[in-house]
Amino acid sequence: MSSQPAHPTLLVPGPIEFDDAVLQSMGHYSESHVSANFVATFGETLSMLRQLFQTTDPAAQPFIINGSGTLGWDLVAANLVEPGENALVLSTGYFGDAFADCLRVYGANVTKLDGPVGGRPQLPEIEKALTDNKYKVLTVTHVDTSTGVLSEIESLAAAVNKVSPETLVIVDGVCSVACEELAFDAWGLDGVVTAGQKAIGCPAGLSISMFSGRAMKALENRKKEPATYFASMRRWLPIMQNYEAKKPSYFATPSPQLIHALNTALKQIMERPLSERFQKHIEVSDKVKKAVGDLGLKIVAAKPEDQSHAMTAIYLPDKVAIPDVLPKLLSKGIIFAGGLHKEIGTKYIRFGHMGVSALDPERNDIDRALEALQAALAECDYQKS
Amino acid sequence: MSSQPAHPTLLVPGPIEFDDAVLQSMGHYSESHVSANFVATFGETLSMLRQLFQTTDPAAQPFIINGSGTLGWDLVAANLVEPGENALVLSTGYFGDAFADCLRVYGANVTKLDGPVGGRPQLPEIEKALTDNKYKVLTVTHVDTSTGVLSEIESLAAAVNKVSPETLVIVDGVCSVACEELAFDAWGLDGVVTAGQKAIGCPAGLSISMFSGRAMKALENRKKEPATYFASMRRWLPIMQNYEAKKPSYFATPSPQLIHALNTALKQIMERPLSERFQKHIEVSDKVKKAVGDLGLKIVAAKPEDQSHAMTAIYLPDKVAIPDVLPKLLSKGIIFAGGLHKEIGTKYIRFGHMGVSALDPERNDIDRALEALQAALAECDYQKS
Repeated sequence: MSSQPAHPTLLVPGPIEFDDAVLQSMGHYSESHVSANFVATFGETLSMLRQLFQTTDPAAQPFIINGSGTLGWDLVAANLVEPGENALVLSTGYFGDAFADCLRVYGANVTKLDGPVGGRPQLPEIEKALTDNKYKVLTVTHVDTSTGVLSEIESLAAAVNKVSPETLVIVDGVCSVACEELAFDAWGLDGVVTAGQKAIGCPAGLSISMFSGRAMKALENRKKEPATYFASMRRWLPIMQNYEAKKPSYFATPSPQLIHALNTALKQIMERPLSERFQKHIEVSDKVKKAVGDLGLKIVAAKPEDQSHAMTAIYLPDKVAIPDVLPKLLSKGIIFAGGLHKEIGTKYIRFGHMGVSALDPERNDIDRALEALQAALAECDYQKS
Repeated sequence: MSSQPAHPTLLVPGPIEFDDAVLQSMGHYSESHVSANFVATFGETLSMLRQLFQTTDPAAQPFIINGSGTLGWDLVAANLVEPGENALVLSTGYFGDAFADCLRVYGANVTKLDGPVGGRPQLPEIEKALTDNKYKVLTVTHVDTSTGVLSEIESLAAAVNKVSPETLVIVDGVCSVACEELAFDAWGLDGVVTAGQKAIGCPAGLSISMFSGRAMKALENRKKEPATYFASMRRWLPIMQNYEAKKPSYFATPSPQLIHALNTALKQIMERPLSERFQKHIEVSDKVKKAVGDLGLKIVAAKPEDQSHAMTAIYLPDKVAIPDVLPKLLSKGIIFAGGLHKEIGTKYIRFGHMGVSALDPERNDIDRALEALQAALAECDYQKS
């Protein structure tokens, strides 16, 4: 039995439903951010991120900063690219486009390759771009929360490392870390930025990231100081190193409560092999996609190989509108999200199936959601054609 | 009786001890950041900030952003000053110096007036600086957490508005908002940046700020876009306006749990007149200062008119070291902070007396702390000379 009050089940692509123990950690009594106990918790949390990101390279560097997933873009754009340097952005939706905006704000010269709506840029055009121009970074959104499109990171990183080995490979893993396979060392990644409130299962408020030794070297070798204060990795680096070495350190006050919640969430994740976690998300996703297809509905990510296992973006039937279906779902205790894509925003809904909702069969969240979707569509007079 | 487990009493100058109801709000079940319920809570919280900052000017604009107090400096430096424009920074310690650093990072041409250690820059030199040069902003740390020095804002703002009316008056209120009198409209302020974890009594993780219509006009009239993404007030402005109008909106995911906790903390604050709250902080501070004097100890902020009511920075006796006295205090259930000032860091300790510890006599936090301080010093063989 959950200790949480009865509430509609939140199945948007983040924030997700949280485990009781994680929410209890949010109410931790007040501690100094430089106390021995809290420093130990923060240090342990940073070290656990290495496991979560699957890196054993001591030169890789985790960061946890008060903020949101968006702040991760600023970290990359302000620290790893200097004004006038080239960035190649692979976009699969709203979040790829926004990452490009962020890079431009800091002066990067951005080339953006767009997938078709519901698809992704393909390797040949990416390789051609990397051959035609020299790029300081390539960024890719692992799962674009606006479309549910999954990017294939392993082969992409291999191609970049072959065609343009000096280009840093940066993954926006906001909607993928802790639910999609992502092997930092094995795949040769240089940066993964994420947030707590999606598959990691920690309330929003933290920017969480991992950078390779190569990325940290690029930071060190910058010609100019990063033109940001709060998002300066140079300022945060000694703080993160000190915390992980269990030494108190100060640049800006972290949130002890959020760090405790993240610590609890990561310990829960580490109780089982990551491979098992990823597999369960695949199974739940397959079940959702099949049920959606059985309802006669189309998925925004058209091709199976482009479909994330974190969430499903579902086209509504022609005569069913978002303002009709979402309240009907809510009346059945289920919360989905509306669309978030400039071209198709009014035409689809988003169903997040991450974390406890995917992993804990006793919650029955997924089956209840699928039943609610079917019932809500029936109430909208939708019949499978 | 508190529902929190027994723990040492945190009396550093933030984070402070938190009320049970605030901590319980931190464990709020998961909500979508665009759900009607959460939007209503966020909107109400923004509106309550207007009361807290004592502004009724509809052109004034509150912001609540995931981050820390430090992020408030980025808001000012990246949004209200353009590269090459002049900023006059009044420094009374570590935090004034750091605000100057932040302004420089974004290209401001900074002139810094330093008070003597434990003191503050005086009006004649400030007026002279404002007469000699044209400044886009003047920044002042209301209470510098490193020294416990209080700046006198009302007469300062009046002087600036007289001598250099086009200069925006920006107050770093991290360690003053909700414990020191600060009248946004009446004093003619243009910006106050703060954080949750000090006198407001909400766990760390939020940057909280208020800007005047004049400041918002300066933002609107910038020649160039702010060179920041996450800290761009232009990007956050419509979000804050929408939330306060109870309309869902998205730029980056806020932390529903922290917003709930802030909402609870602000409601508690608004239950009583602010003047009563400020007066109680004065009384507690006077008691602490008197007890410290009775122990034969000196206060870093030497002159009574320079002493904050939020905290007291206390010089240790010559033969007593921080690593001796803090563990002895901890053994008695009291946590103070060490020094944080480049010149005197090893010579003093900091005692925060804000929020519930100052306002709730049943906790007995202040008397217990003063007794613990006396006992710890006695164990260090200190005798009043």
